[in-house]
Amino acid sequence: MDVVIIGLGLIGGSVGMKLKKSNLGYHIIGIDNNEQHASRALELGLIDEIRSLDAVVSADLVIICTPVDNVLRLLPGILDAIKADGVVMDMGSTKSEICTLIDKHPKRKSFVATHPIAGTENSGPDAAFDSLFDGKTGIICDENKSHKNALLVVNRIYDLLKLNVVKMDSASHDLHIAYVSHLSHISSFVLGQTVLEMEEDEKNIFNLAGSGFASTVRLAKSSPAMWAPIFAQNKEHVSQSLETYIKNLTAFKVMVDAADKDNMFESMTRSNKIRKVLDGIDIQSMNAEPKTKEMINELT
Amino acid sequence: MDVVIIGLGLIGGSVGMKLKKSNLGYHIIGIDNNEQHASRALELGLIDEIRSLDAVVSADLVIICTPVDNVLRLLPGILDAIKADGVVMDMGSTKSEICTLIDKHPKRKSFVATHPIAGTENSGPDAAFDSLFDGKTGIICDENKSHKNALLVVNRIYDLLKLNVVKMDSASHDLHIAYVSHLSHISSFVLGQTVLEMEEDEKNIFNLAGSGFASTVRLAKSSPAMWAPIFAQNKEHVSQSLETYIKNLTAFKVMVDAADKDNMFESMTRSNKIRKVLDGIDIQSMNAEPKTKEMINELT
Repeated sequence: MDVVIIGLGLIGGSVGMKLKKSNLGYHIIGIDNNEQHASRALELGLIDEIRSLDAVVSADLVIICTPVDNVLRLLPGILDAIKADGVVMDMGSTKSEICTLIDKHPKRKSFVATHPIAGTENSGPDAAFDSLFDGKTGIICDENKSHKNALLVVNRIYDLLKLNVVKMDSASHDLHIAYVSHLSHISSFVLGQTVLEMEEDEKNIFNLAGSGFASTVRLAKSSPAMWAPIFAQNKEHVSQSLETYIKNLTAFKVMVDAADKDNMFESMTRSNKIRKVLDGIDIQSMNAEPKTKEMINELT
Repeated sequence: MDVVIIGLGLIGGSVGMKLKKSNLGYHIIGIDNNEQHASRALELGLIDEIRSLDAVVSADLVIICTPVDNVLRLLPGILDAIKADGVVMDMGSTKSEICTLIDKHPKRKSFVATHPIAGTENSGPDAAFDSLFDGKTGIICDENKSHKNALLVVNRIYDLLKLNVVKMDSASHDLHIAYVSHLSHISSFVLGQTVLEMEEDEKNIFNLAGSGFASTVRLAKSSPAMWAPIFAQNKEHVSQSLETYIKNLTAFKVMVDAADKDNMFESMTRSNKIRKVLDGIDIQSMNAEPKTKEMINELT
């Protein structure tokens, strides 16, 4: 089976590595507009060969792993070009604009919109590793818009990657993911910015920062090339989440200014409830055990 | 040597455990106004015996590990009560108000103001572990206000705890720690609050949250009883840091609303510089290697 992976960074590289290691006969063709990334991916054994975009014409499956602005740019042409039983999937962190763009495309049913909730703060082919997706959630959006066979192909890939499938519509995806993922990236990027601005002498940060700061600001190391298009594409929900976050921070600041320990205590006690949710997410290990039905039920 | 530890939570419990395991003849007397915590600390072997506050009278060393409002409440009386060559140290996350309070105390020189930059999001004696402080930074403030012998005693304890000593004045401590520690706790508490408010159905958070969200919101699990007094006591610096953070978030929101990818990209690229600083902080392991002089020099 000929699989074309477009975008050979952390996500695309990790997909390639896993499929190749499966020994199920996948032939992995890699495409990246960054030539160094492409040759590095070949060198690392993440792909079998480097080709240009016209390789999609004969592909059985095309997996788009580029930043989401390039998904928009590439997807219509790829759908035009693929063979009749070819399947296309993307793995981007936004879904609505992508799905809207090709909603009326004659080959819409050949496309499956997906989003694996997996990643690290590192990027590029050297950041790839084969257990990146193990036990993580893989979202498939607007399933009813895709052909049954296309869904079968994508589910097989998700199975191989050990992703646990969750299904939702693309509009809900973009709303919820704004809060649970996009907002935490911005809070971290801006925290990093604020501390760097204040501490011109980085030695102070290094000396005084503990594991708490490191944990909170970890996402500030993430790739701007990946995240700028995500925030732009999901701007309404991201803006709404930021507005609420800023409003809540401002309310907290009022309590700080008044040294109002009682209300700060109450507010933080409410936030403590996040522990119950986090206990289901293994942040220590990149090889988290799959989230079981039982764990999900406990939360309901 | 009789050591009295007041406050038998994560910090006090971990100090007790480490000193007892040293087999250097420390006799550890534990005090906690929470009786359950006290008996649990005894049960866990973190202390040798439980006593009441009058035990400080005969103590060689008193280590105050309570929330910082109780440090203020307890410290003057303890200084009044200790014997002539007794030493008192605290381990709180704020230093100015504590140092100002006892600045004119006749036994000021018996007190050493300290702050180990160590902790987890867990609290209580059950959260204690003996490597909590290994390789972390231990700050000693206003050294010139303490007697040489008192400093010797405290340095020996810090050495045993494997803390790397950094010296600074209490005003600088409170300013810098507001940015590098207190602000990241608020950003995390309020992020948790914002997401919980939005996601009434916690299943959505559980299904959609990845390790990035878990990392950013980890500190929202921290103890409100510990943090409310810290924010109140360091309110000026904390408020200033929050103001800058909110200003920067608001500026980022303007870019999101305008889908201004170029400026978002630039802003995030600047934040990426935090990687260099974080690379010196081991967030994976609680047993981080000591930060070496070389690593610190690299940052200068």
